[in-house]
Amino acid sequence: MEAEMAFIEKTIDSSIVYEGPIFKIRKYKVESVNGEPAYRDILEHGGGATMIAIKDDGKILAVRQYRKTLDRVVLELPAGKRDPGETTRETAVRELREETGYLAHDVEYLTTIDPSVGYSQEMLDIYVCRGLTEGETDFDSTEDLDLVEYGADEFYDMVLNNKIQDAKTALAILFARAKGEI
Amino acid sequence: MEAEMAFIEKTIDSSIVYEGPIFKIRKYKVESVNGEPAYRDILEHGGGATMIAIKDDGKILAVRQYRKTLDRVVLELPAGKRDPGETTRETAVRELREETGYLAHDVEYLTTIDPSVGYSQEMLDIYVCRGLTEGETDFDSTEDLDLVEYGADEFYDMVLNNKIQDAKTALAILFARAKGEI
Repeated sequence: MEAEMAFIEKTIDSSIVYEGPIFKIRKYKVESVNGEPAYRDILEHGGGATMIAIKDDGKILAVRQYRKTLDRVVLELPAGKRDPGETTRETAVRELREETGYLAHDVEYLTTIDPSVGYSQEMLDIYVCRGLTEGETDFDSTEDLDLVEYGADEFYDMVLNNKIQDAKTALAILFARAKGEI
Repeated sequence: MEAEMAFIEKTIDSSIVYEGPIFKIRKYKVESVNGEPAYRDILEHGGGATMIAIKDDGKILAVRQYRKTLDRVVLELPAGKRDPGETTRETAVRELREETGYLAHDVEYLTTIDPSVGYSQEMLDIYVCRGLTEGETDFDSTEDLDLVEYGADEFYDMVLNNKIQDAKTALAILFARAKGEI
């Protein structure tokens, strides 16, 4: 079944309505499909990277971190925001080192995800990191991360048994398994 | 490897710093792990549902919709925000009808995802909908959706070939395939 292109909303005007440390909110006034103006609140976010980092023994690195959003500790793959001027491949290497201490010498692009297309510009590039050598962690002093590791089958089973709800983590593991990477 | 529990950040204070039609932003002042106060901006969102709706002929329903966030048309599974007082199962049935016109008579819970745990409270419950009967669409007059449909193998291949970046859609398809649902 072929579809016509959906209507493209032209911007009439836009302005920043909130600016915080992690993201800004921009309100767009757009021309909507019925000819009336409509408003879209968009979270501006510079994107980032998520890493499936696989040790030489096959174990996959993960972090357990308290998330204020859910008010609980969440198990996640290492991930982080892109710094200005950085490629997401550079983000992947930097954030992996900061969060886990491991330096990745073999970094392979896997896929890209848009976590919340309804309201957020965030895009995450997912990488598979191998050839890891141990070093020192270096994370934000107001954050606390516990480093953990799982075998690929164990990680995959946790996803299928609804033990992992973090979208980037579940998606990365399912995608990597479907592609035969883990 | 067993991990200690990561540090839980107690709330010292919080206030709404932005209120829009789709979400609010609440700024929390928290007690961080180093004893200093830290601030966390959290997007408050009531959650919603995403649906893998499978017709009797095996085709899976999807929608193509312009998204201001990415300034392009995005292919997605039908989805929507939970209305107050609604269960996400009710959201799934209502949104499927509104966006595609189909009424689902068999609705099975698949899994739950948290799209952006770093800054958003959003949680999406994913359902598999079968026993579909055709009816009328009923969506927001400022929105434009094109209904499309794909066979399960074709949909799965689009995910694996990086044609689908929308996280809920890619994750739902990968998860359903891994579970043998599609």
